[in-house]
Amino acid sequence: MQIRILVTGGTFDKEYDELTGRLFFRDTHLPEMLRRGRSMLDIQLETVMMIDSLDMTDEDRAMIVTRARDCDERSVVISHGTDTMVETARALAAASIKGKTIVLTGAMVPYAFGSSDGLFNLGSALSFVQVLPPGVYVAMNGQHFRWDECRKNKATGCFETV
Amino acid sequence: MQIRILVTGGTFDKEYDELTGRLFFRDTHLPEMLRRGRSMLDIQLETVMMIDSLDMTDEDRAMIVTRARDCDERSVVISHGTDTMVETARALAAASIKGKTIVLTGAMVPYAFGSSDGLFNLGSALSFVQVLPPGVYVAMNGQHFRWDECRKNKATGCFETV
Amino acid sequence: MQIRILVTGGTFDKEYDELTGRLFFRDTHLPEMLRRGRSMLDIQLETVMMIDSLDMTDEDRAMIVTRARDCDERSVVISHGTDTMVETARALAAASIKGKTIVLTGAMVPYAFGSSDGLFNLGSALSFVQVLPPGVYVAMNGQHFRWDECRKNKATGCFETV
Amino acid sequence: MQIRILVTGGTFDKEYDELTGRLFFRDTHLPEMLRRGRSMLDIQLETVMMIDSLDMTDEDRAMIVTRARDCDERSVVISHGTDTMVETARALAAASIKGKTIVLTGAMVPYAFGSSDGLFNLGSALSFVQVLPPGVYVAMNGQHFRWDECRKNKATGCFETV
Repeated sequence: MQIRILVTGGTFDKEYDELTGRLFFRDTHLPEMLRRGRSMLDIQLETVMMIDSLDMTDEDRAMIVTRARDCDERSVVISHGTDTMVETARALAAASIKGKTIVLTGAMVPYAFGSSDGLFNLGSALSFVQVLPPGVYVAMNGQHFRWDECRKNKATGCFETV
Repeated sequence: MQIRILVTGGTFDKEYDELTGRLFFRDTHLPEMLRRGRSMLDIQLETVMMIDSLDMTDEDRAMIVTRARDCDERSVVISHGTDTMVETARALAAASIKGKTIVLTGAMVPYAFGSSDGLFNLGSALSFVQVLPPGVYVAMNGQHFRWDECRKNKATGCFETV
Repeated sequence: MQIRILVTGGTFDKEYDELTGRLFFRDTHLPEMLRRGRSMLDIQLETVMMIDSLDMTDEDRAMIVTRARDCDERSVVISHGTDTMVETARALAAASIKGKTIVLTGAMVPYAFGSSDGLFNLGSALSFVQVLPPGVYVAMNGQHFRWDECRKNKATGCFETV
Repeated sequence: MQIRILVTGGTFDKEYDELTGRLFFRDTHLPEMLRRGRSMLDIQLETVMMIDSLDMTDEDRAMIVTRARDCDERSVVISHGTDTMVETARALAAASIKGKTIVLTGAMVPYAFGSSDGLFNLGSALSFVQVLPPGVYVAMNGQHFRWDECRKNKATGCFETV
């Protein structure tokens, strides 16, 4: 089974700029994370954008939808900021992409930090995408949700069923 | 969905004894790993034993089978050393436990080390156990294998289909 | 020999707020760092403030000077943001505190990040403070500088002799 | 000031072999540690051997003494296993090397582990070596000891004055 990972940025990939003291984006950490996880999956990795999901526009979402629809793989994982993950999931669902399982995931803490949940979530999303039926899902907190059945709880930082 | 995690030790949980310079077992790191992963799953954690899987006897395996069969949950993840993971999977399959999805996972590098694959594998196993049909599986390297379709490649440290 | 550590914040102690995605201060990481370093030094730890050194006012500096002067210990390490470390060193020197060795140190990357220089700098500052003659010093990049002989190079993030 | 670091192995540099599950030596982590510490010191790094200090023979010690004596630098840091660090310090002292400050240091936990004291000890040893008068010293636990005034407490893993 071939899997496409579409990288869009989000907390997952934020780094600390030691000269300015701010968080920023450089390259994605996904290749390093896949190495650490000893992944033997057949993965095509593609960086679509590297942005904070709060800055994501409709055009950005349209581009993600296009890439998810047009890529060859039937299993697609999208790394994404958690704040608007559900919005992008909705845009993907609205596109009615046939025969593809699409799983969005992200992290609450940047991978570059010792305490990141990123590796756990990546292992989770890559597993769900292999076995869930076609559709658009969010994989966070060890769980999976259909795109229209979840929201991020801003107070706890966790995803929950609506 | 309720999930039972049966802890048996393995590289996952090895620690460095700074007085002797040897690796040893103390408490399981699973609770810390679930916290790091921000898991919101309904998990019952049970330490069955804390041993190197090379030291596992038939009696040990029988105890693991008993716990997997007798626990209330229909979804069971077993943390296990990789060297004899497939043997334990075989013992579980031989027990013909009805209606349960059992997923064994482990790590090549102890969680206490910076470079561990443990968190990735745990996220993976917990995801597979929620969606795979009843049966006994191994989840390693981002993949899942039926118990009778995999082996550990000693040269690469990776699991592969037989 | 007794050593006083005055904590003032700085990058050393910044943490990632996973709900807001911003860096912030909570408790100091110094006790954890001393444990990790297996420090057997006789240390009194005192949090004077927890702020970014760019936000430090003259009143803040006066308070640091007061605490450095009034504490019982003759060896004082001050954890401090790097941006205005030299300014605080100058304020300390201006106070003409007799018979005390005062060493300021900090970090370019928060201790909570995997790649922090904090532990190295702390080991360095605690060592210099035990053996340097009375005076005010900056300990960064493995080096020590007299307060009036260094500056932070904003382009490289390193301290250098002026 | 130029500093020579003589690498001899020890816990500092032990790594986890994921195929055998054993600790072993490969390359020294010193260059990576110096980068993490943002060291701006003028350092010549030389790997003399990579062994467990319990396996160190008289010939090995003679080689370390030779290198410490013959190198151009007057400031020498030696990374060393803690178990026989004091023995090597004694051998160095017996050689009556004139005009050189020699500081031995090590770690209780390998640098490759998240919880290592190595970076703290390295920052400490590199600082002491710049300011202590000629002689042979051990730098551990944030402290420095003359070679004939310390021992490792096997029960606590800490160095103490005799």
